[in-house]
Amino acid sequence: MSPEEFRRHGYALVDRIADYWTKIGGLPVGHAVAPGEVAAALPADAPESGEAMETILADIDRVVMPGIVHWQHPRFFGYFPSSTSPPSVLADLLCAGLGVQGMLWATSPACTELETVTLDWLARLLGLPEEFTSGSTGGGVIMDAASSATLVAVVAALHRADPGWRDHGVRGRYAVYASAEAHSAINKAVRIAGLGEDAVRSIRTDPRTLAMDAHDLAGRIAADRDAGVVPLMVLVTVGTTSTTAVDPLPAIGPIAAEAGAWLHVDAAYAGVAAVCPEFGWVHDGLEYADSYCTNPHKWLLVGFDCDTFFVRDRLALTGALGVLPEYLRNAATESGDVIDYRDWQIPLGRRFRALKLWFVLRWYGSEGLRAHVRNTVAMAQELASRIAADDRFVIVAPHPFGLVCFRPAALPGEADTAADARAALLLERANASGTMHLTHTKVHGRYTLRLAIGNAATTPDDVAIAWERLTALV
Amino acid sequence: MSPEEFRRHGYALVDRIADYWTKIGGLPVGHAVAPGEVAAALPADAPESGEAMETILADIDRVVMPGIVHWQHPRFFGYFPSSTSPPSVLADLLCAGLGVQGMLWATSPACTELETVTLDWLARLLGLPEEFTSGSTGGGVIMDAASSATLVAVVAALHRADPGWRDHGVRGRYAVYASAEAHSAINKAVRIAGLGEDAVRSIRTDPRTLAMDAHDLAGRIAADRDAGVVPLMVLVTVGTTSTTAVDPLPAIGPIAAEAGAWLHVDAAYAGVAAVCPEFGWVHDGLEYADSYCTNPHKWLLVGFDCDTFFVRDRLALTGALGVLPEYLRNAATESGDVIDYRDWQIPLGRRFRALKLWFVLRWYGSEGLRAHVRNTVAMAQELASRIAADDRFVIVAPHPFGLVCFRPAALPGEADTAADARAALLLERANASGTMHLTHTKVHGRYTLRLAIGNAATTPDDVAIAWERLTALV
Repeated sequence: MSPEEFRRHGYALVDRIADYWTKIGGLPVGHAVAPGEVAAALPADAPESGEAMETILADIDRVVMPGIVHWQHPRFFGYFPSSTSPPSVLADLLCAGLGVQGMLWATSPACTELETVTLDWLARLLGLPEEFTSGSTGGGVIMDAASSATLVAVVAALHRADPGWRDHGVRGRYAVYASAEAHSAINKAVRIAGLGEDAVRSIRTDPRTLAMDAHDLAGRIAADRDAGVVPLMVLVTVGTTSTTAVDPLPAIGPIAAEAGAWLHVDAAYAGVAAVCPEFGWVHDGLEYADSYCTNPHKWLLVGFDCDTFFVRDRLALTGALGVLPEYLRNAATESGDVIDYRDWQIPLGRRFRALKLWFVLRWYGSEGLRAHVRNTVAMAQELASRIAADDRFVIVAPHPFGLVCFRPAALPGEADTAADARAALLLERANASGTMHLTHTKVHGRYTLRLAIGNAATTPDDVAIAWERLTALV
Repeated sequence: MSPEEFRRHGYALVDRIADYWTKIGGLPVGHAVAPGEVAAALPADAPESGEAMETILADIDRVVMPGIVHWQHPRFFGYFPSSTSPPSVLADLLCAGLGVQGMLWATSPACTELETVTLDWLARLLGLPEEFTSGSTGGGVIMDAASSATLVAVVAALHRADPGWRDHGVRGRYAVYASAEAHSAINKAVRIAGLGEDAVRSIRTDPRTLAMDAHDLAGRIAADRDAGVVPLMVLVTVGTTSTTAVDPLPAIGPIAAEAGAWLHVDAAYAGVAAVCPEFGWVHDGLEYADSYCTNPHKWLLVGFDCDTFFVRDRLALTGALGVLPEYLRNAATESGDVIDYRDWQIPLGRRFRALKLWFVLRWYGSEGLRAHVRNTVAMAQELASRIAADDRFVIVAPHPFGLVCFRPAALPGEADTAADARAALLLERANASGTMHLTHTKVHGRYTLRLAIGNAATTPDDVAIAWERLTALV
């Protein structure tokens, strides 16, 4: 494809995306396909001869579009938002067009240094401790997802606990502490790291806040130490996936420190709220943390994938993950003056993802990002007020950010199982209507609807439309 | 940014990329910055107010471009190629604009099913065993990098060796076998998986071919079994990073099978050569493999990141990596009729990367991809002929694909260390000229220049220009 053809097809694709965003609010939010339906619409083999771009793009309409859930829809309220934005898309286009590899500083210095600088920007914007910036002992790195950050934190903790671990593997008995509401990523991480899920201590949560009970944590650590088990890591969640509960980091921090455990803070969803001073409290106690992550690809208008992982002691990371075969040796690496991000992550290769974070931080500015967070929270609080004022519904968890968890109120004499089935049916009908996309969780074992706000396109009217539909369907 | 503004900026960025590709051949291939220089050109903090896109793009020219190595340059011959192509860039733009999440089938069925189908296409195109396709017991998945594929293979092997591993972690003594020329990813993987690098058995290679010595492998396995060590995995490399050596899979396969070891084939670079029937031999013996990966983002015109990982028994993967918290439960998952790729990989979230593989397979067609591979190989063989015919140089390893490894011939009476220093100086001067970008390796301990061809833009003239410069500088 010549540059001139690329120009023509590129314009057309830019138009297609702009048109998609313009009309997206009028589309049903969910997909319209049964298992196997997309695959059945495709040929069994790759074509022998090349096809025209027009033919390929026609199949986007025919095959792909009916089979996607519109995550950028203003009434996509499922999971957590994964909102991109126009400047982020432009940056991803630039990243693809430049096609550089950032595995080493030497393979494209700007890819590394722009990442270091934008993560320093973000650290200061979020009020992270100075030690998490590159001018101090630590620094930040962009990963694909918070699950990878959790795994890297476990691995760094193992290295710190036993420097011989690199050579002889996991030896001895370790425990990892996380609240019962923590993300399943910790289970996956301990499995991959060779500890096994038995190492996970599921710490009790406060029944009202669903946040970790620091007393239970202290008790479990003490019991493990008595039994000769080493407290390897405490995982604190700032904004759990289920209900956005915030573990009490100021109380947990000293307990982890006293036990010598690595303290990792998973603020994947809620950490970015701290761009607003009124949410600075989400980072109280972060002076105790060894590592921290938050995902600008959730609620800060950067397209997936952009998990930002920060560490207090970068030598713990590079010690755990560093490799230097001959074919990667170079003068810059050996000078010690540069960062080689390959040693901060699981894969070797890396895309120029800093561009999208940089574009978004600059296009919106700090004030634009604060406005986005505040708008989201205002919409969620307005919705929560409506729910609280409606006898047909109950709110089941605190809702300090953009997520509201609720369910239909029990009918007189209704059993829990019947009420849960009615709640599940409500969600199914709401999603089937195409008006919105919600997901669910369980809170104290009870079926709970989650309505998560945060997409760039969402307005108060969208939330009102969803609420009206829910009240009509209940 | 309104859709109309996005349209305007999007056109400008498409133009910028088209212009870049048009003029790239005239740019010096390498970067022009010292450590810290890019960072020093950036402000210390994110801007308070949003900035104009024109301001941001001006900084691309001012700050970013001088700091990148032009990986898409026709005379970028370093590492392995990581060549993107216009259709791949268009697909990445579409991926960014749609902004969907493919962690579950239910979160965008087309993202999952298009991936399954295009990987089946690729499997057939490369002549992989039927068992590696979705209609059989296995299937493929797109990962970021071959390092991640290696780690996932180790984890799946652990699960197969000991189903209790998920719960109690690594127990017992395991060994992993890889040739002395295998990628460092295996060392990183065994470290992360909790086995420790002591578990890696570095198997001797044939001094001429640099391929694994199957007899040495058999001997090491026997010795380990005698010592009560379990042979966990044999890693076979098809196209080593250093010199593109091909381990003798037909000889190794039965040895691994007899030992009950997981057989993983890392064909990251060379596997895609099998789009050409004359390179079908690279997959001889693949009937013994449990898992396999190759990277279309290296030599098949798909932009990074696109590692394709195939497995014979998909239950081994989902058994090792599967998690199902309440907030991810859904009817499609529970029906068992769909693939949820989150259980085939380390992270949870995933981008719609199948689009770029699909676009590339369709735009070029099988014949276009064969032509690309053949052109690459023809250029490399032509270069090798010139080197072989020139007394000032020696070729130091077989060169069946697009990489040629060579060094200056020793001068009469010249010590190895002096000859190595002269070779390193030649590389430094060649790269400093801006005409080309080469990297190095060591072969039998001797400094060796690597010239890897495979970029979409490279022509025989580019190789001739590089060769002339090298002969002038030697």
